[in-house]
Amino acid sequence: MKTAAMVLALSLLASPGVMFSQAAVDAAFKAATSNVPGAEYPQINMDRRARFRVSAPQAEKVELNLGGRHLMTKDQTGVWTITTDPLVVGFHYYSFVIDGVNVADPGSEAYFGSSWMSSGIEVPEPGVDFYDAKNVPHGEVRVRPYFSKISNAWRQAYIYTPPGYDNSNTRYPVLYLQHGAGEDERGWTMQGRANFILDNLIAAGKAKPMIVVMDNGGGSALFVNRGGPAAAAPGSGRGNAVNSQFADILIREIIPMVESNYRARNDRANRAIAGLSMGAGQAWQIGTANLDKFAYIGGFSGGATGEPETAYNGVMANAKTFNNRAKVLYISIGTEENVQGARTFHQKLDQHGIKHVYFESPGTAHEWQTWRRSLYGFAPLLFR
Amino acid sequence: MKTAAMVLALSLLASPGVMFSQAAVDAAFKAATSNVPGAEYPQINMDRRARFRVSAPQAEKVELNLGGRHLMTKDQTGVWTITTDPLVVGFHYYSFVIDGVNVADPGSEAYFGSSWMSSGIEVPEPGVDFYDAKNVPHGEVRVRPYFSKISNAWRQAYIYTPPGYDNSNTRYPVLYLQHGAGEDERGWTMQGRANFILDNLIAAGKAKPMIVVMDNGGGSALFVNRGGPAAAAPGSGRGNAVNSQFADILIREIIPMVESNYRARNDRANRAIAGLSMGAGQAWQIGTANLDKFAYIGGFSGGATGEPETAYNGVMANAKTFNNRAKVLYISIGTEENVQGARTFHQKLDQHGIKHVYFESPGTAHEWQTWRRSLYGFAPLLFR
Repeated sequence: MKTAAMVLALSLLASPGVMFSQAAVDAAFKAATSNVPGAEYPQINMDRRARFRVSAPQAEKVELNLGGRHLMTKDQTGVWTITTDPLVVGFHYYSFVIDGVNVADPGSEAYFGSSWMSSGIEVPEPGVDFYDAKNVPHGEVRVRPYFSKISNAWRQAYIYTPPGYDNSNTRYPVLYLQHGAGEDERGWTMQGRANFILDNLIAAGKAKPMIVVMDNGGGSALFVNRGGPAAAAPGSGRGNAVNSQFADILIREIIPMVESNYRARNDRANRAIAGLSMGAGQAWQIGTANLDKFAYIGGFSGGATGEPETAYNGVMANAKTFNNRAKVLYISIGTEENVQGARTFHQKLDQHGIKHVYFESPGTAHEWQTWRRSLYGFAPLLFR
Repeated sequence: MKTAAMVLALSLLASPGVMFSQAAVDAAFKAATSNVPGAEYPQINMDRRARFRVSAPQAEKVELNLGGRHLMTKDQTGVWTITTDPLVVGFHYYSFVIDGVNVADPGSEAYFGSSWMSSGIEVPEPGVDFYDAKNVPHGEVRVRPYFSKISNAWRQAYIYTPPGYDNSNTRYPVLYLQHGAGEDERGWTMQGRANFILDNLIAAGKAKPMIVVMDNGGGSALFVNRGGPAAAAPGSGRGNAVNSQFADILIREIIPMVESNYRARNDRANRAIAGLSMGAGQAWQIGTANLDKFAYIGGFSGGATGEPETAYNGVMANAKTFNNRAKVLYISIGTEENVQGARTFHQKLDQHGIKHVYFESPGTAHEWQTWRRSLYGFAPLLFR
């Protein structure tokens, strides 16, 4: 989930050719909310410029790794600093490169992305609070250990239970929600803030109360070089090859575990599957191959590829049959990532008569702000 | 929670004067379980030697920071390596120092300690599995967000609910369990494996099923220099000065939140408070000041200081009165930390007639293995 933040900054907001400026910036800088408590840096200002800082008097060269490497400037005391142009809103992974070594910023909270505990910076989107913790009833995120016979290993699921779960006898529908390559079961809450998105939607009456199961879809091995993706363009279906075991674990272990331990409804009309990037590929693959188990499929920035007649083993070949089975098929993409593939696929689905919802997230890339918005758009359509 | 692992290695196991050896070590090295998935380093072998490695061809100097700084050795390809002498069992924080900058190891999972997302390495204790995930019923760890009016901020509690919680109407006793300075609400499960300790004790019938509430006791500000404690020797009571707000939050917000949202028993005989290091100080302070609310107090590596007649506002001055109120007072310390203070206090309590349980953890320091063992010893005594 490599950030394209800097590229975007250029294309959307900054003067051409000016990547970084050390000039004085008027608006006040404040510590990013994605920092560990007490860390003054990185900072962000109202113009969405970020300022990174690290003390490294003995280092020869310090770079910021944020959508590419950018040289930082050393002052007399050995403190290296960089101030970016305005960044795209949302969450961006980043790191420092200290004399050639890619390392996390000690000031940042750590977020599992690109198969390591990366740094990340949250850039607030003005006027947007759908993923904030607000004064509404809150669900819980439960960490549930379980042993997988298929993988012969202990695993853990992150399971969101909606507000009021403990004080009712209601049985709830379930959304299975997958992270991207190089991420894990923590991503949707740590980076994506999925629990707060659901809390807010449910409080507003916009989404039905539901259980959300976030598990580990594998795929960390895709990232052989820490700090950056080795391959796997969105929608490439690469997740299929490396993660076939996950489909088996989901169908044969996770779903039975959830349905025997939680008040989960257990019919296809009450199960949805969605994911981002590699997880979108998994949602498409597992969802279409198991339409007896899932009536809702969401693919955020991935999986929307091929020909409607033949893709996913031809499950959409007969549009009428498919439309009767898939109650909602949701496809999303950021306008600043590889939008053309999804856009073309969307047009082909229209031509082929496949009912679906198509969403382009304006101004965001292959990053979490696209996926937060996608979940915010997808969840209200479920279980109606 | 600075590791004293290397010091211990010297004192217990290694030849005097030989801190590190690069010599061939026979026993096979395997990736530590504390790594991120797929990371080959750090490794640990059956002799409890650890091998750390980082690729840094352009760096002038790379050190391992594990109970002090130790120079690593660069090979022709720019890979820096170090193999330690046998380490003390348990969990040790560590980091790399790359050309003078203290950074996390990209191969490690990240653990909040010393107020940053530190690296950590798990050194297995042969034949000991009380903190392993085993084939027993498992509880859940629930992440619960709540708004604190006292601190005017969103906070989150980590709440362990025991196996079977969702399938009964039982009301459970509650242990409030605190981390140390520079740590947070994640520490007792991430580093301490408290949930697995409780699962195993409950399955064996050794501990009563209970809820365990792990919240943020503050104290990160103690660590102004990242990577090491700025002050606060164990038992110094330093936690009191910086964290007085926490007592208020616990009593007025956390306990009511827990008791209104969980099936928690709500009388003093069913509440316990314990903690480690700074958290031990908090357990002593809050517990003794609120004996109407807590009947059980556990202080692991902290808080055991002063004179029985006067300590903690003289609550123990009358031994008989105190003994009638405090059903269990548990004091523990590692033999390789500042053991003398706790040992002396224990003797004074004996002389003064204060009933208590005193435990010295053999061969472990001011680290998590001492505290895992302490929880394992303390939990079975509760709510009898």
